[in-house]
Order: sequence, then structure tokens, then C-alpha cells
Amino acid sequence: MTYCVGMRLDDGLVFMSDTRTNAGVDNVFTFRKLFTWSTPGERLIVLQTAGNLATTQAVVSLLNERMKAPEDRNPSILEVPTMFQVAKLVGDTLREVVRSQTAKGPTADSTFSATIIVGGQIAGSEPRLFLIYPEGNFIEASDENPYFQIGEAKYGRPILLRGYAPDLAFPDAVKLLFLSFESTLKANLSVGMPLDFLVYEDGSFSDDRQKRITADDPYFRDLSVKWGEAIRIAIASLPDVEL
Amino acid sequence: MTYCVGMRLDDGLVFMSDTRTNAGVDNVFTFRKLFTWSTPGERLIVLQTAGNLATTQAVVSLLNERMKAPEDRNPSILEVPTMFQVAKLVGDTLREVVRSQTAKGPTADSTFSATIIVGGQIAGSEPRLFLIYPEGNFIEASDENPYFQIGEAKYGRPILLRGYAPDLAFPDAVKLLFLSFESTLKANLSVGMPLDFLVYEDGSFSDDRQKRITADDPYFRDLSVKWGEAIRIAIASLPDVEL
Repeated sequence: MTYCVGMRLDDGLVFMSDTRTNAGVDNVFTFRKLFTWSTPGERLIVLQTAGNLATTQAVVSLLNERMKAPEDRNPSILEVPTMFQVAKLVGDTLREVVRSQTAKGPTADSTFSATIIVGGQIAGSEPRLFLIYPEGNFIEASDENPYFQIGEAKYGRPILLRGYAPDLAFPDAVKLLFLSFESTLKANLSVGMPLDFLVYEDGSFSDDRQKRITADDPYFRDLSVKWGEAIRIAIASLPDVEL
Repeated sequence: MTYCVGMRLDDGLVFMSDTRTNAGVDNVFTFRKLFTWSTPGERLIVLQTAGNLATTQAVVSLLNERMKAPEDRNPSILEVPTMFQVAKLVGDTLREVVRSQTAKGPTADSTFSATIIVGGQIAGSEPRLFLIYPEGNFIEASDENPYFQIGEAKYGRPILLRGYAPDLAFPDAVKLLFLSFESTLKANLSVGMPLDFLVYEDGSFSDDRQKRITADDPYFRDLSVKWGEAIRIAIASLPDVEL
């Protein structure tokens, strides 16, 4: 499994991904699930992946290859004119990979499927955020649905529902995402440290503000302990039940 | 879907269940999922059900019928000597119902399966709590695993992991369960109000302390609002991220 969140804020976008991949309880590896493409001053594109690792790696590799081989008939992720076209390109590439893996060679129990979050900004337009389904079609984030979760999304959802506000400052949004991931890590073995996150400020066209948080990160450990205390204080502060 | 929790505490047991049943998004009904049997001064048995409604109703009906027809070869839930035997009786009855529904008549997409929590106390022994799988086998709660969740368990799990302690007083445990249910209700349509809960005090052999909380219950509504505020205060109290 996997857990990734892409979030739209008034100030820009925030992305956070875990890095654990596994087949059952075996073959546990650390793989990056957050990828970026950028043309400084013109565009920044972020991609987060969940699902079959061979599929998601193939999608990322194809996007990279086609960027470097302009004679290819497919457009490059650095050249399509809008974020909508970026989402369509990623969706088409995903559909192509799934279809090619399903059609030929030995079959497997796995469905080869994957789900992808794509976000970013191209000069002349607002930052935009999309969720791409395994079938290659996609939806866009809106004021009513300002963030997307993929993978093991349930454990970390209540805190997002409670804590999200569009006017959150970046440090508060990252803190909220840490808490959502912390809840998930505590409950599910298939989501694991380290965590990658990226903060994208509207108009910056840059992927500079990204960081990897490892399991021994002192801030994250401290946050986890203090969150436990804060939750217990919050519960105690609520009115008592009459039995 | 469904959400039920059975919890073991130093002082006794606490049970909470939602009441929504549905087939897809249709056929939405309210059905009780918390059942009790008692012999005052001697035993109290609580059962919570998740899964196929026809199966769980058949299990409860069979347990009731056999209690009233002592000539039946099966033992009565009010006569077996230990909670372990109660769990075995419920497990056997569940296995029998699932097998009979699977073997005859038209098949369905549904598997007819169900999961059951059984808890209670029989004079001469401690209160005990069991989780019964669809196959009829079961496990018992322990100090390491003092509560069981069945149905839509993920949304409400992080708060239980954070808030549970064996020495919680009953009002605090019920409050914690309300918060776990509140998180689930907010995120999932298949779990719905009203909620039934029962507090069982060690040695009381009574089901007196049970209550139904409806959607317009002023305490529950107030708790939901105040919990939102308390969570935001808790988040704000945590150390800031340096970006």
C-alpha cells in the first residue's frame, strides 16, 4: 500500500508521500513516490503515485523518455500548454502502461493498476490539482474537495476533515499532513517512513522546497509524542457524558 | 457497512454500535446491532454484529429460539457454563447459518458472511470479550489488544489508539467511543446514527446501563462541535514545522 496526499491551499499546493512498497508482508522496499518536473519561471509539475510499482515506474520513465526524445509522437510533459493537458498526458500514459502489461505475457493476481495525483502550475494559470484513476480518466480538486488522498486513505482522513482550511499557512498545512500520516503509520504496516513532502508557492515555478523526513527525525518524533498528549488533553476538555 | 466497538476496561466492558444497514446506497434502514441476554445476578451477555443482515438476524433468532426450546440438542446461551462456551456457541451458530445459506437456493454476490463481537460475564469469572470471525473461530481480547472493532473500522482507529487506557472511567471511555464514531460518521455514509451503547460494570450482571443516542441528541451534537474546536487547538499547540 501507500499513502499520499495532494492539497490545494490559497497560497499554493502541498504534497506528502510515504515511501514504503511491499508485496504482502514481503518484499518491503523504500521507493520514492513523489516526482517533479520543472522549467524554472515557467512550470512546475508534481506527481504522486500509488498502486503497482512496475506500473508507476513505467509511467514516470515514459514521461521522462518522451521529454528527452522530442521526435516521439507523444507530447512532452514540459511542453503541453496547460495543467489539464498535463493531467491528460499522465492519464493517457497510465492507461497505455496498464493496457500493455495486461495484454501480453504472463498474467498475475495483481491488476497492474495505479492511481496518481498530479498538481502544479504553468505560467498564465492558477495552480491546479488532479486525481487520475487507474482507467486514465481524472477529476480536479475544487473548493469543496480541496485535497486528494490515494492509497491507505482512511486512517488519516478524519484529521484532514477536521483540520483543513484553505487559508492554512504552509507550516500549518505540513503539520496537519504530518498528523494525518502519523495516524496512518501507527495503524498500518504498509505505510512507512521516510516521508517526502513538497511545498509549492503560487507563482514560484520551483521545486526547491522539498524535504525527506526520516524515522529518526527529531521534529517528527517530538510531534508524535506531543500529539498523543494534546489528543488526551483535548478529550479531557470535552464535556462529560452522563451515564 | 457497520461500525461496532467492544472494549475491555479495568472496571468492566463498554460496547457501542451504529444502526445503519444498506445494500449499496439503497435499502438504507435502521437496525439494532447490539443484543443482550441476561440472568440477573448470574450472567450478562452482549453481542454486536457486522455483515450480512439476514445472517446476523438468523444467528440472533437461533440463539433466542434455542434458549426457549430446551429440548433442542443445542445448548442455550443462558445455560453454557463459561464465556468461552458462549463464544463457541455463537461461533458454531454463525458457521451453521452461513453454511446453510451458502449451500441451498439461489446464490448471490454477497458471501452471507458476518463478524461478531461477544462479551459479558458469568458468575465466578472475570468479564471477557471475544471477536468471532465469519468462519466461526474466534479470538479473545487481551491486555495488548483490549478492544475489538468490526465493520468500517479504519476511520475511528487512530483516536482509539491514542485515547485508550485500561483505567479509563466509564464516562471517559464512552466519550472516547463517541469520538471514534464521530470520526467515522463524518467520513463514511454506510455508518449512521442513532448509536447504541451499553456500559457493563464488573460484577453487576445487568444490562441496565444502555442508551440510544439519536442524531439530534444535544450532548452528541455539542461534543461534535467542541471536538472540532479542540482538535484545532491541539494542532495549534504543537511545535511549528521549519520549512
